[in-house]
Amino acid sequence: MRGTVLHAAGDVRYEEVPEPKILKPTDAIIRLAATCVCGSDLWSYRGINPVKQPLYMGHEYCGIVEEVGSAVKTVKPGQFVVGSFCLSDNTCPHCKHGYQSACEQREFMTGAQAPYARVALADGTLLATPGTPSPEMIPHLLATSDVLGTGWFAADAANVQPGMTVVVVGDGAVGLLGILSAKQKSAERIIAMSRHEKRQKLALEFGATDILTERGDEDVARVKELTGGIGADAVLECVGTQESMHQAIRSARPGGFVSFVGVPHDMTLAGEELFWSLVHLQGGPAPVRSFLPNLIDLVWTEKIQPGKVFDLDLPLEQVADAYRAMDERTAIKAILRP
Amino acid sequence: MRGTVLHAAGDVRYEEVPEPKILKPTDAIIRLAATCVCGSDLWSYRGINPVKQPLYMGHEYCGIVEEVGSAVKTVKPGQFVVGSFCLSDNTCPHCKHGYQSACEQREFMTGAQAPYARVALADGTLLATPGTPSPEMIPHLLATSDVLGTGWFAADAANVQPGMTVVVVGDGAVGLLGILSAKQKSAERIIAMSRHEKRQKLALEFGATDILTERGDEDVARVKELTGGIGADAVLECVGTQESMHQAIRSARPGGFVSFVGVPHDMTLAGEELFWSLVHLQGGPAPVRSFLPNLIDLVWTEKIQPGKVFDLDLPLEQVADAYRAMDERTAIKAILRP
Repeated sequence: MRGTVLHAAGDVRYEEVPEPKILKPTDAIIRLAATCVCGSDLWSYRGINPVKQPLYMGHEYCGIVEEVGSAVKTVKPGQFVVGSFCLSDNTCPHCKHGYQSACEQREFMTGAQAPYARVALADGTLLATPGTPSPEMIPHLLATSDVLGTGWFAADAANVQPGMTVVVVGDGAVGLLGILSAKQKSAERIIAMSRHEKRQKLALEFGATDILTERGDEDVARVKELTGGIGADAVLECVGTQESMHQAIRSARPGGFVSFVGVPHDMTLAGEELFWSLVHLQGGPAPVRSFLPNLIDLVWTEKIQPGKVFDLDLPLEQVADAYRAMDERTAIKAILRP
Repeated sequence: MRGTVLHAAGDVRYEEVPEPKILKPTDAIIRLAATCVCGSDLWSYRGINPVKQPLYMGHEYCGIVEEVGSAVKTVKPGQFVVGSFCLSDNTCPHCKHGYQSACEQREFMTGAQAPYARVALADGTLLATPGTPSPEMIPHLLATSDVLGTGWFAADAANVQPGMTVVVVGDGAVGLLGILSAKQKSAERIIAMSRHEKRQKLALEFGATDILTERGDEDVARVKELTGGIGADAVLECVGTQESMHQAIRSARPGGFVSFVGVPHDMTLAGEELFWSLVHLQGGPAPVRSFLPNLIDLVWTEKIQPGKVFDLDLPLEQVADAYRAMDERTAIKAILRP
């Protein structure tokens, strides 16, 4: 079969790759209904994370179970499933605490930008949907696998509660779904930061009440203005840069909550600034598996349409165009159809 | 009257100072029953914080109200009171959220190592005890003003809950009272780090279940051993150095909670390490005022004896000896009697 391989910065190809096989009794093979390109794929595509060997790309996925290993008990061939980008046993102490993204057996999904993929730790990773979804529902289910799960974790780690004022830093797909998540958690006011018309529109559709277009400290000053000088109760940092993190911490009120869900690149925090800010801080790879039952239910019952972040829909063989569009920010997020 | 003035690193004197006066209608003047030296006083005493002008020292206090300004309503002359080292109005939005240490009108107490002191924002800062305490109770009440309040905040910010495994980094008075606080919050296991016999003994008396004597990464390895490889649910960082912070973060399980309550000195956190650790982090100056009603009650009803951290009891005029003993770590904490 063919699959997506990143050979070097900017050089992504749809080419012949080995077919995935059951390697362990806990594996499953799935036939993908759809996959997509993640903002984190761009770190390698842009050469910021060095590409030392060819990489089998893709970690967001949903589809039909094709085959399962002998130990797999909770999913079976023919079922439609979604799984987290973090593969987990869902039984170890970290998983039981709700941190499947720190599972003692954690692996990261790879090779999902392909027609078929192997999912290790299938029982602890995959969740079957209540039935076979309609074609219209597939993008929404696909989104739960990482981008919505990560946006949801941003809202969860920032302790978003009913009635709160929330700031979302970052207008990428994760930030936009952080807005949707904050809205689902009944935030009263959701202040989004974006200077991009299409993203602003989606932010408003997902529940943003205010859009700020300033940069850095000016944005912080505007947040203070909008909150009567107090600052936000919760801030979702969905970028992962030094500047965005500073902006997030400074936008929160003393004792407010800041989450950060993008892998930080060259980011350091000054202990003293953090101390005087009095903010609560939590970041990390999202434990999507712990949110999946709820997220699948919200999609299945048509309460949310997270797949709206996909504004580019391409056949999988055009995966290189998808990377290019996301790199150039002409697309928010590309869905790929095998 | 005479009071305590720090003229330069190592040069603390008990000398003639102006008597405190009511300057604003919201002020109170108190006659101190006792005061003490804080670990944070040592930063200036050791010259790590430069001493640019003579400093009126002392911010931990309790005593009898001598006089109040015309606007003061909640305390009156003759009452015995305790107050936080952070002076607050207790009415602004930050105070209402429980962060009196970020009060919009925040001032820091000074000049309390003296027979009399002015307390600004008296209504929002001071709390009267149910009656006049016995002499034996005074050290315990004094401790609530900062050192216990800060240890309590450490346990609070680290989300200590019944049944949890807690690590306390630092065997100073704050760390020791962090142990007491974790015990009060029904932690099941409290792992203290100390290589100092007298402090180990008090740690055990306050509720520590295990004492570790290793350093740095070895300590972290021991915590992992003691917790079946998982890490602690909550870690109280009560030192404020780079090493202690690393130790704290690495001792926590993924999704665990780390608090830090000493002003950090030259501490930076790598965003990426924090990200992968998945810990919750909160630090800052303790909002003691929010805990005071409970802490005073615990002392008054003799449920806790936090004043046991005072292992040196001196007349105030020997304040220089108190600084020296704490600097040399021959005393845990010195109480001073005017």
